[in-house]
Amino acid sequence: MAKEKKLVEAITSMEEDFAQWYTDVVKKAELCDYASVKGCMVIKPAGYAIWENIQNELDRRFKETGVQNVYMPVFIPEGLLQKEKDHVEGFAPEVAWVTHGGLEPLQERLCVRPTSETLFCDFYAKDIHSYRDLPRVYNQWCSVVRWEKTTRPFLRSREFLWQEGHTAHATAEEAEERTKQMLNVYADFCEEVLAIPVIRGQKTDKEKFAGAEATYTIEALMHDGKALQSGTSHNFGDGFAKAFEIQFADKDNTLKYVHQTSWGMSTRIIGAIIMVHGDNNGLVLPPRIAPTQVIIIPIQQQKEGILDAAYGLKDRLSGFRVKVDDTDKSPGWKFSECEMRGIPLRVEIGPKDLAAGQAVLVRRDTHEKVTVSLDNLEEEVSRMLDTIQSDMLERARKHRDAHTSQAVTWDEFVKTVDEKPGFVKAMWCGDLACEEKIKEVTGATSRCMPFAQEHLADTCVCCGKPAKKMVYWGRAY
Amino acid sequence: MAKEKKLVEAITSMEEDFAQWYTDVVKKAELCDYASVKGCMVIKPAGYAIWENIQNELDRRFKETGVQNVYMPVFIPEGLLQKEKDHVEGFAPEVAWVTHGGLEPLQERLCVRPTSETLFCDFYAKDIHSYRDLPRVYNQWCSVVRWEKTTRPFLRSREFLWQEGHTAHATAEEAEERTKQMLNVYADFCEEVLAIPVIRGQKTDKEKFAGAEATYTIEALMHDGKALQSGTSHNFGDGFAKAFEIQFADKDNTLKYVHQTSWGMSTRIIGAIIMVHGDNNGLVLPPRIAPTQVIIIPIQQQKEGILDAAYGLKDRLSGFRVKVDDTDKSPGWKFSECEMRGIPLRVEIGPKDLAAGQAVLVRRDTHEKVTVSLDNLEEEVSRMLDTIQSDMLERARKHRDAHTSQAVTWDEFVKTVDEKPGFVKAMWCGDLACEEKIKEVTGATSRCMPFAQEHLADTCVCCGKPAKKMVYWGRAY
Repeated sequence: MAKEKKLVEAITSMEEDFAQWYTDVVKKAELCDYASVKGCMVIKPAGYAIWENIQNELDRRFKETGVQNVYMPVFIPEGLLQKEKDHVEGFAPEVAWVTHGGLEPLQERLCVRPTSETLFCDFYAKDIHSYRDLPRVYNQWCSVVRWEKTTRPFLRSREFLWQEGHTAHATAEEAEERTKQMLNVYADFCEEVLAIPVIRGQKTDKEKFAGAEATYTIEALMHDGKALQSGTSHNFGDGFAKAFEIQFADKDNTLKYVHQTSWGMSTRIIGAIIMVHGDNNGLVLPPRIAPTQVIIIPIQQQKEGILDAAYGLKDRLSGFRVKVDDTDKSPGWKFSECEMRGIPLRVEIGPKDLAAGQAVLVRRDTHEKVTVSLDNLEEEVSRMLDTIQSDMLERARKHRDAHTSQAVTWDEFVKTVDEKPGFVKAMWCGDLACEEKIKEVTGATSRCMPFAQEHLADTCVCCGKPAKKMVYWGRAY
Repeated sequence: MAKEKKLVEAITSMEEDFAQWYTDVVKKAELCDYASVKGCMVIKPAGYAIWENIQNELDRRFKETGVQNVYMPVFIPEGLLQKEKDHVEGFAPEVAWVTHGGLEPLQERLCVRPTSETLFCDFYAKDIHSYRDLPRVYNQWCSVVRWEKTTRPFLRSREFLWQEGHTAHATAEEAEERTKQMLNVYADFCEEVLAIPVIRGQKTDKEKFAGAEATYTIEALMHDGKALQSGTSHNFGDGFAKAFEIQFADKDNTLKYVHQTSWGMSTRIIGAIIMVHGDNNGLVLPPRIAPTQVIIIPIQQQKEGILDAAYGLKDRLSGFRVKVDDTDKSPGWKFSECEMRGIPLRVEIGPKDLAAGQAVLVRRDTHEKVTVSLDNLEEEVSRMLDTIQSDMLERARKHRDAHTSQAVTWDEFVKTVDEKPGFVKAMWCGDLACEEKIKEVTGATSRCMPFAQEHLADTCVCCGKPAKKMVYWGRAY
């Protein structure tokens, strides 16, 4: 058992050092690695396969709402980036600049896109003429670059993968509707597919996107009680349209500005999957997103008929994403390895099982073992994967709820943030000063003003003035 | 009919000006547009949907051969690019350089990847230790940047989309086998899915990839008789492995260098689809790659029951990618539009058809019209799409063969290149000098030394010395 232990022992326990546990899981589950380019990552096959499943599922959901995919250039000329004032202030300090093409210096610097609002606006200004051209509901899957100083795999890196949707509408109402619709697509995707419960709400002015009128967000709670912004959807009103002169002739034959939205989800969400579901044995993947849902491990595979039986089970389970581990490693090593990699369900089949017409099924999330008759294998596997999926969501929801507190007074608030990792619900007057004081004193930021508002008190938790909104506060990634 | 004509008349005929015809089709079929960034393109929904189908189909074929997808950084540090001598000489003159991150100058310049051999090698050097780690068969879908001086949509642009596979193997034989295997994946994909016949062969030393021992290529012939390199697969031997120190402990416990390959296909292939199949009415898409395979056009759609009938047909054809054009445009305009967009099959349904229990099917490739009973609609549509697909390949093959000549003497060669657009087969001594003279005098380059060699003569068509290889020559994109 020495070898098996070695694999597991290499992970720091999450209670001991959560940050190190995270790094260990990323590395041992072979999700990604550091590249020679500082702050950039190499996404390895096990990590990229998760991203492919996220892409497929999100893309399908996008297209059901009428989204069309396009591709915009990777470069933004400096002049274009500067057209919308708030936007350039938000992004200019953290972009990478291209100054030479081949051996020649460029006449105008190009930045590597940190986000593509300006490119879409520039395109829409030429492409939209009439109300017949609206709405435009475009999206692209690409990488973006932001010159971060401190980086962590998936959570914060100089380059990351994402999708960015950019839409243009004839009316403000339609833009608002699309902004909310896409937030709900993200929220449903997180809950139904990733088994991650989220709070849906609006960002404060301080936390909203550079150039947006309103930013909506979904916020998830990690196992260590810190929050992670998991997807955002922005309503730009007609601010970008005015800066970029995106006008259309409406049915009444007058020229009007379009109303725009943008919305994005990135490889950051893989960090959330790790930190919501993982445990001290490694990654735990929800079945609906797992690249491999079922791993079949033959026991005493050198014995006649065992490997054949394992492959026979694989054929029977062809409705799932299934693999057989027929390597020459010991079963114990294989168990540790598939636990580390987060494969939801393990099927063990050995000579005794075969003789008895049964197999042993082991859940990754609970380690629960059940012996099932081979006669019912497909149904049992299907049922167990469904159970794992819903149990994981339920467990994450319970953890989130158990780590959501509320505070009415300032002392109570400071103490709660300090002593109870998680969300803290508290009332807010709406002033930036209170938001800044809260951050400075407690390290907690306003995560969102949830759509589901509650009235906890009449006054702001910070200044005591009349409260306008209930806010979820928390320390965050 | 004035409106319908306007749409069609906007295309230059290919006989008049092929280059302008190409640009017109790209623009009128709404495949792509120029961006504000010089030499970069915006790939619009109709163009990107073709690329998505190419991705899905190629990716499926890759994975069947054991390929795993990954993602490498967009940047390459200058020092890394310089590690392999031939490679840096080939690419350094045409890369974009990032010199600033945020407000700070970088200590080392980064180039935006023109191709990722150096990144994969850098990664493999850290990641491969033992024969157990081999083979590594990785691929990524991404964009790359090459600072081209003259650009054309899809064919040559400063940024384009592609996939690049990079593999590492224990033996030279295995690397050679993988190089050929992937070339065949490309060739089969072109012929079976894109209906583009290709010549499979090897590049001469002059035309091979910077740093490769051997480059294999598939060459297609466009409608104007010019060739287009449509996919390449490179065997690197152990050249990169030695430059990057990629070694593994073999079964015999000695350290050995890996043998590597790389292979790529890009959005350039969309240019080939346009130029092989298009006609003076616009794009013609092979059914297997067409985002919309069947378009249903209701005639007199304001009459009761017609739109319902059209949607009823759509439901019945749910096994295909099908759309109903229920816009308020005239049927004639709709006909022109779906021809411009290359939709393989049009179904017309009007009051008379409905009364007679029939529909009119119109092939995009031949304009052939047939009336079919609604009872057999699914089978007829399926059969016709299959026929269109195979007829398109057959037609392209006949065109290619009719535009393939051969020459034995120098005078014959010069005259043939000049007078007969297309491939010219001729013998070659293997000397660079002859290759250069042929290019200088005729503008034709060596496209490939086909795997299917023929003996046309004993001597080189250029110098008269003993011939070593038969070569396909041609002017090319």
